Amino acid sequence: MTPGISTENQALLERFRAGKKVALARAISLVEDERPGFQAFLHAALETPRFSKRVGFTGPPGAGKSTLVAALTREFRDRSEDVAVVAVDPTSPYSGGALLGDRIRMNDLATDPGIFIRSMATRGSLGGLAATTREVLDLMDAFGFQRVLVETVGVGQTELEITGAADTVVVILVPESGDAIQAMKAGLMEIADIFVVNKSDRPGADRLVKDLRLALHLREGEALKDVPAHHGVDLKRMGARGDRGESESEEAQGPTWEIPVLQTVAHSGEGVDDLLDAVAGHRAYLEESGVLLKRREARAADRVRDVVERELRKTAWNHPGVLRALEAGVAGIVSGTETPYSLAGSILSELLGSGTK
Amino acid sequence: MTPGISTENQALLERFRAGKKVALARAISLVEDERPGFQAFLHAALETPRFSKRVGFTGPPGAGKSTLVAALTREFRDRSEDVAVVAVDPTSPYSGGALLGDRIRMNDLATDPGIFIRSMATRGSLGGLAATTREVLDLMDAFGFQRVLVETVGVGQTELEITGAADTVVVILVPESGDAIQAMKAGLMEIADIFVVNKSDRPGADRLVKDLRLALHLREGEALKDVPAHHGVDLKRMGARGDRGESESEEAQGPTWEIPVLQTVAHSGEGVDDLLDAVAGHRAYLEESGVLLKRREARAADRVRDVVERELRKTAWNHPGVLRALEAGVAGIVSGTETPYSLAGSILSELLGSGTK
Repeated sequence: MTPGISTENQALLERFRAGKKVALARAISLVEDERPGFQAFLHAALETPRFSKRVGFTGPPGAGKSTLVAALTREFRDRSEDVAVVAVDPTSPYSGGALLGDRIRMNDLATDPGIFIRSMATRGSLGGLAATTREVLDLMDAFGFQRVLVETVGVGQTELEITGAADTVVVILVPESGDAIQAMKAGLMEIADIFVVNKSDRPGADRLVKDLRLALHLREGEALKDVPAHHGVDLKRMGARGDRGESESEEAQGPTWEIPVLQTVAHSGEGVDDLLDAVAGHRAYLEESGVLLKRREARAADRVRDVVERELRKTAWNHPGVLRALEAGVAGIVSGTETPYSLAGSILSELLGSGTK
Repeated sequence: MTPGISTENQALLERFRAGKKVALARAISLVEDERPGFQAFLHAALETPRFSKRVGFTGPPGAGKSTLVAALTREFRDRSEDVAVVAVDPTSPYSGGALLGDRIRMNDLATDPGIFIRSMATRGSLGGLAATTREVLDLMDAFGFQRVLVETVGVGQTELEITGAADTVVVILVPESGDAIQAMKAGLMEIADIFVVNKSDRPGADRLVKDLRLALHLREGEALKDVPAHHGVDLKRMGARGDRGESESEEAQGPTWEIPVLQTVAHSGEGVDDLLDAVAGHRAYLEESGVLLKRREARAADRVRDVVERELRKTAWNHPGVLRALEAGVAGIVSGTETPYSLAGSILSELLGSGTK
């Protein structure tokens, strides 16, 4: 937590500040691996706040996200924006062919010096994938990219937390990925700024578009509370971590944003222009309405929570008294003289002092 | 953390102990929603340790896990074992057809009073899906089920942590799910006690079986260290949380377990008997070798870590001083006078006292 930064990391920081991409890549590894001094490095790198335009993309496997992100990257480059792409795929070892193919297409783009691409599929990180990815996005900000794109697969908690670190969230569905009710249940209505129905030359696309629009209008009328919370998914809890802290009602006076439902065929490039316009339109809305500032503040709070929680975990599991108590108590749990809850209670007293809880 | 339990929860506990399934279902909801007193309830429920035989199933979407789990459930029932099934699918809102179909097939089984089925797709839980699922498994133990099956989709961190709470882990692949190298990269070699190649009437099945066997033999010879760690996946970090704390070398004297690679066609029931035999065989190995006890201890340690980390988070984010500091500091991060790291440092001092770190 101290501003103390090692000589080696100081040298890296200088090359990072000089705009060396190799230094960015090494800085990302430093953060991903949580190597000594990574927090001091991040602190120093973020001292000069820069704000790239961040766009997040999420959707089910096979929705064509990578192809669409590649197409958008080309368009942003044509407009002379530097683009960094973070592709997060916790399940990548399985996905094989299609995804790798897309990634290779993306890598062709990577010969362009204005493009930086990073794949993340880290498991087992102490801070968790979401926290680490958010730090990587911050690094790309700090490095000075004008545009940062983050792509996640799936709609688990991690993916939603990552996408929540973007200014604009594009949710990509395909006719095969299920109906609008499922999208509502997945909490996508809460997170999407733009819906895209990709592969919209396939049967069912028009229906999905129509249903999504209907669902969005229903939501506006707050009819959503009547939707049963199946599968244990509680729509109201979605914003619990404050990723999207702003309340829609607070914006009643200023400009408003009506979530569009676009149709694309990423492989042929159809609809990509419309998507680009929608992203730009949402950006204008964010700035004019003041929502951008609120999102940045909510994001800052999230980042602080990430760091505090990671440090609490590290403090706990490096505490000699805690480790002794854990080691001594585990046999008791197995034999029935303790439970995880009684042992956790003793450990917490050790850590926080018995008065806290 | 105190043994104080409310009158309402005490009544629930009594019906739970009396073996009322409705009480089990309500207890699970209590834990899932982290309602007041859920930890005191868990403490009381776990005071009498019972140990069901836990089998975990994981694999990519579409591998036929649910069908296989349903087939096994029938077999266990034929042997007069009570069976509880927990199906965890963080991505379920997307998966639509196939999974729902399987779930309905499972629900047919649920008319059998010796079967209890629970789906979990909770997002946004404070403790995280893995921690909550492990608590639900503990509840099923405590309720007295002889056999608890847990099924997860995918190979993210959450899924591996959940599956690690089982005594026996069955990894289900299909010819389409990729090759053995991908399975190695996903950390499946570290977690699998039994490999199943399902849909093995399809092209590529024999090849996958052969490759998996080869990979398993290579691993035994420790040739694994030569496998490059692509995608940031670090095989050595897999056991970091101690889910599988036992070291293979420690077992050199006792019985050993050679991970089998089985072939099944779940829909026709082909190979299900072999899988059942393998599960029973692994159980015998676990008991005779003493590995079962080690796994239970590692599991107990994990459970304590879960509870401690959840309580630390709750303590932090309910602490008035912390909330004030967070609120006051967020604007500073956005404007550049603070970073998440400097603010987190102040918050940690507030929480732990400045001497801790």
